[in-house]
Amino acid sequence: MTGKVYLVGAGPGDPELLTLKAARVLRQADAVLHDDLVAEDILRLVPKRAQIRNVGKRCGQKNISQDEINFLMITLAASGLQVVRLKGGDPMIFGRAGEEMAALRKAKVEFEVVPGITAALGAASAAQVSLTHREQSHAVVFLTGHSASGDDPINWRALASLGATLAIYMPGQRYSDIAEKLRFAGMADDTPCAVASRATTSEEQLYVTNLKELGRAPQLATPTLVLVGEVLRHASVSLPLESEFLRGWSPREASVATHAQSHIAQHPPAVHTQKEQ
Amino acid sequence: MTGKVYLVGAGPGDPELLTLKAARVLRQADAVLHDDLVAEDILRLVPKRAQIRNVGKRCGQKNISQDEINFLMITLAASGLQVVRLKGGDPMIFGRAGEEMAALRKAKVEFEVVPGITAALGAASAAQVSLTHREQSHAVVFLTGHSASGDDPINWRALASLGATLAIYMPGQRYSDIAEKLRFAGMADDTPCAVASRATTSEEQLYVTNLKELGRAPQLATPTLVLVGEVLRHASVSLPLESEFLRGWSPREASVATHAQSHIAQHPPAVHTQKEQ
Repeated sequence: MTGKVYLVGAGPGDPELLTLKAARVLRQADAVLHDDLVAEDILRLVPKRAQIRNVGKRCGQKNISQDEINFLMITLAASGLQVVRLKGGDPMIFGRAGEEMAALRKAKVEFEVVPGITAALGAASAAQVSLTHREQSHAVVFLTGHSASGDDPINWRALASLGATLAIYMPGQRYSDIAEKLRFAGMADDTPCAVASRATTSEEQLYVTNLKELGRAPQLATPTLVLVGEVLRHASVSLPLESEFLRGWSPREASVATHAQSHIAQHPPAVHTQKEQ
Repeated sequence: MTGKVYLVGAGPGDPELLTLKAARVLRQADAVLHDDLVAEDILRLVPKRAQIRNVGKRCGQKNISQDEINFLMITLAASGLQVVRLKGGDPMIFGRAGEEMAALRKAKVEFEVVPGITAALGAASAAQVSLTHREQSHAVVFLTGHSASGDDPINWRALASLGATLAIYMPGQRYSDIAEKLRFAGMADDTPCAVASRATTSEEQLYVTNLKELGRAPQLATPTLVLVGEVLRHASVSLPLESEFLRGWSPREASVATHAQSHIAQHPPAVHTQKEQ
């Protein structure tokens, strides 16, 4: 009997944002290889008899290479096990699933992909902001912040001239690099943007600002995601730097909101977005 | 007692790709307003006592306006009910959630957004193609095909020069319009692309071609989604028009694959992608 590998998306953070299919596959797993960002509550679905291994690349103590992960998946499946490769978010968005699928194809190991809610959609739901809007944004772009430094494969001028909402994954610590790239590429200083930290979890934070001030945003706990675009004017926490959006909130209070609940729903009646006025 | 509105993503088609949270919210609903694309199996989660209403805009018989949908949500919530506004895919991607949230804010009705798997991620999983790739695509763009005709808000030249994977929602019947826009904007004729029809359902089909030939793709059953980009060379069904990718499959057999199962896993060992050779 040969096994099978499931490449499964664990979603953006809230364990309840796992799909029914992902939950079923985890309950039937013989072995689970998971990333750092996967919640404990999700791993509790795995049967006690199953092997569970953290193969997260950030897990401090020991670095495990992509080749080692591929080898583990293939070896476990070849020994007849149902293997779940569990990734934060969705496997097909910045998840290196391309490399893992290539290795599985080469080894002729059967596999199936179970999609997950990717981080940008989790952040959009938490901030109560539609990433597209009939009047303001006809497209949305997902990219990584790694691109903002070093060997840069992104055409920032093209990106800035799209008029799309941008969701920047793994923005790193230097938001100013991203802001400079976009401003230099022609994006307006007052373009609204937000830093979402641990969106959809009990520790989520949302900091709303504009492109000119993005470099001064506080360092929020990772994982973070930066959203850029006119649609952000509708965020549940309004822009701090335009006094017309404030009406009684200090910039600090208006710009950082921490929530004990799993959604961002606090927005006092006095705070409105431009559209609603 | 005041009610609450949940804007919920139903996912891409497969009922099992609903999130655990969406399933919980549906089981507790007093009223459900759903789009056309939502599967029957998902609606079966709703309690028998609850009102269920199809407010899909394509449902032939009678057109219901966005204003009427907003009025229904607000009226039902104001009468103390737990209302689920159930949308195909994810509410924040081409789902008009922006307009619905604005109406709910204005009416001071409490709401919460539950994200769903958006169609592009469903199609990527079904086609076993990562939308991003360390070597080939550092970004992915979601846009709609409506943009390809009439009043066009998309900067196609910028789009073509990004080097990103494109996921084109609601491409309509005229794939040739999309192909022409992208070729005119400078995208290469041999750029791989695919039409995904009803991905993640038992009726899913995937047609893989290139940009030059996209206009000749068959009209597959809606909903469809067009994917464009180098990452498509890794699709489980390989390119029909490059004989080196074929090795024994006729173009017809290689390019259209219908699956009774909920994933596209058929790819005979003789068919390989360029990367793997």
